[in-house]
Amino acid sequence: MNEVAIVGIGGTKFGKHTEKSIRELALEACLKAIRDANIKPKEIETAYAGNAVQWEWGQGLSIGQAVLRELGITKIPITRVENACATGSCAFREAWYKVATGTCDIALVFGVEQMTVADSIKMLTIIGGKQFAEREGDMGLSPPALFALLARRHMEEFGTTRKQLAMVAAKNRKYGALNPDAQLSNAITAEEILNERMICDPLTLSQCCPRGDGAAAAVLVSKKQAKKYTSIPIYVAASIQVSGTYPDDRSFTFFDPDVRGAKAAYEMAGLGPEDLDLAEVHDCFSSAELVHYEDLGFCKKGEGGRFIEEGLSDIGGKIPVNTSGGLLSKGHVLGATGVSQIIEVVRQLRGQAGERQVKDAKVGLQHNAGGFLHTDTGTCVIHILKR
Amino acid sequence: MNEVAIVGIGGTKFGKHTEKSIRELALEACLKAIRDANIKPKEIETAYAGNAVQWEWGQGLSIGQAVLRELGITKIPITRVENACATGSCAFREAWYKVATGTCDIALVFGVEQMTVADSIKMLTIIGGKQFAEREGDMGLSPPALFALLARRHMEEFGTTRKQLAMVAAKNRKYGALNPDAQLSNAITAEEILNERMICDPLTLSQCCPRGDGAAAAVLVSKKQAKKYTSIPIYVAASIQVSGTYPDDRSFTFFDPDVRGAKAAYEMAGLGPEDLDLAEVHDCFSSAELVHYEDLGFCKKGEGGRFIEEGLSDIGGKIPVNTSGGLLSKGHVLGATGVSQIIEVVRQLRGQAGERQVKDAKVGLQHNAGGFLHTDTGTCVIHILKR
Repeated sequence: MNEVAIVGIGGTKFGKHTEKSIRELALEACLKAIRDANIKPKEIETAYAGNAVQWEWGQGLSIGQAVLRELGITKIPITRVENACATGSCAFREAWYKVATGTCDIALVFGVEQMTVADSIKMLTIIGGKQFAEREGDMGLSPPALFALLARRHMEEFGTTRKQLAMVAAKNRKYGALNPDAQLSNAITAEEILNERMICDPLTLSQCCPRGDGAAAAVLVSKKQAKKYTSIPIYVAASIQVSGTYPDDRSFTFFDPDVRGAKAAYEMAGLGPEDLDLAEVHDCFSSAELVHYEDLGFCKKGEGGRFIEEGLSDIGGKIPVNTSGGLLSKGHVLGATGVSQIIEVVRQLRGQAGERQVKDAKVGLQHNAGGFLHTDTGTCVIHILKR
Repeated sequence: MNEVAIVGIGGTKFGKHTEKSIRELALEACLKAIRDANIKPKEIETAYAGNAVQWEWGQGLSIGQAVLRELGITKIPITRVENACATGSCAFREAWYKVATGTCDIALVFGVEQMTVADSIKMLTIIGGKQFAEREGDMGLSPPALFALLARRHMEEFGTTRKQLAMVAAKNRKYGALNPDAQLSNAITAEEILNERMICDPLTLSQCCPRGDGAAAAVLVSKKQAKKYTSIPIYVAASIQVSGTYPDDRSFTFFDPDVRGAKAAYEMAGLGPEDLDLAEVHDCFSSAELVHYEDLGFCKKGEGGRFIEEGLSDIGGKIPVNTSGGLLSKGHVLGATGVSQIIEVVRQLRGQAGERQVKDAKVGLQHNAGGFLHTDTGTCVIHILKR
């Protein structure tokens, strides 16, 4: 397969944007990415759109074409993809694959979501969809419940503490406060987080990601074209997508798709966790990030608590994680989340991350999860990017 | 690119299936396709799901994994795609592409939709989604209105008659009555159709496709594997996807994406319309099929009326069209439609179409449209299959 470079990135601030349509949100992100790439819209040959849920009736349908026409791009194929919370990464991956296999030289991807237009009841009944009703739904396994159970088990088996969990959220809020595109822009301490309203024991409010509206976009080109558009192309060294498997009697304290996905990604890139300068991982809940440290090989099994407590996932630490603020602070805007993670890694590798810059970053990993990652309905997408 | 063969097909009857979930509908289709392919589910390496609209809250999300787990398949990547009414064909195309580019040898695709769970008001407001509201929506350009305007203009410019339009629907109902999976299974005459309730002049009730529930699936394998699974592999000779373009002062009596898509598909297959033994085309309205005859090169511009009247699209005619009953009789189950068209072409090329068999069929074309095919939001997907 051909090497592919990311030459343009752009996104909206995440937050409440009910005054705009999803088309307008996506358009803003695409325009920024296209300008950043220094390309003409007409040069784009293929495109993918990520949009997960129809929060408002009629949303999403043909969203790709509806956005492209505003950019002055017509005729080219564009398809929307969905894979729950991993939607944006799957859209990126399809665009990458088209360039990597030589079908085209220039591709556009965007992810968009507008979650705040739906009421909370709808939010709560997402997993009540008929395809999940007989299993996860009937067991009351909403995402907060699942990630709280995971946390409790990790505490029991490895001595992980409530404070360590809260420190994950505090770290991400600290970095989110330095990211102008983040939804939650105020830093708070682990102590404050521990004293917040309990959502699902041991997860307090700020240990659960907010919902929001927003969009993120990227322009990908073949290696041979890359230098034409940018002096700092960022290359896709690995792109891996795996699904989960049946929950059996294995330990509940790791995500099987993470482990398989990471192994395949490191193999594809010819790199290991020791080569990573930073990572954006799927911190939908504080416990999730802590477990991803272990599953992605940043530390040994059971040492996630120590990894956060010793500052190893901080800027200046072993592998800075979620310098964007992550899902917990930047926000989790389903269709846009994966692409926004890629944007942060690209910014870091370009040396454009401002106050939250990781010094001389050369290799970064992006990890995005969808569905019930513990079970057969989960999806894990991992990209490794390098300068 | 590698040659790809279709070795398994299967679908549900289209119609009202509110007693089932979309997962159950998709499962039925997948099981039939897998059995038809004579493969073990575990041999499948990648999969795509087509599902267009969340008719009921929570429908669609992670539908791919929810279906695979029932089949005993886990771990493999599966992504849902959407492209309005062309959703199923886009899912098929992504699966085909993965096999064609050598990423895997065996892929599964399914399309599913459950439209009857939503009320009619929701149906009517699909195009009222914010991304269309300021244009097509505000102009009242619902699909029946658009295809009626197209019919009127074709009548004005080329002398096409109301009777010729009704004959399209009568032909498709005649063949649908021979297809046990069709939603509308009673044949009716053109005279009866002309006397029906007017929906949007000149389109009467049976000239507008019904909505329904159902699923369709296919198994694709690389050419080198094909003979292992079937004695009659059906090869994908062309797969093309294009989007529409801005409506300008060009004639309103043709679909620009059809013309560009067909040209590219014939070129890719090294075949022309003269080589086709049959075609499944997107007859969402009678006027659509008549115009597709012209755009896909089955006859000259303006001769669509004559093509149907002289029986040239009948079995025994020049190019039999929609022997499955088409969208007008078999039904239009958005996410499943494209895959169900492919199923009919495969059945015909295998010689398994029973009473509606086209004698010694060797090459067939499948054409699926999505969005507003007249404008920049449209999508056209064309596959050419050969024995």
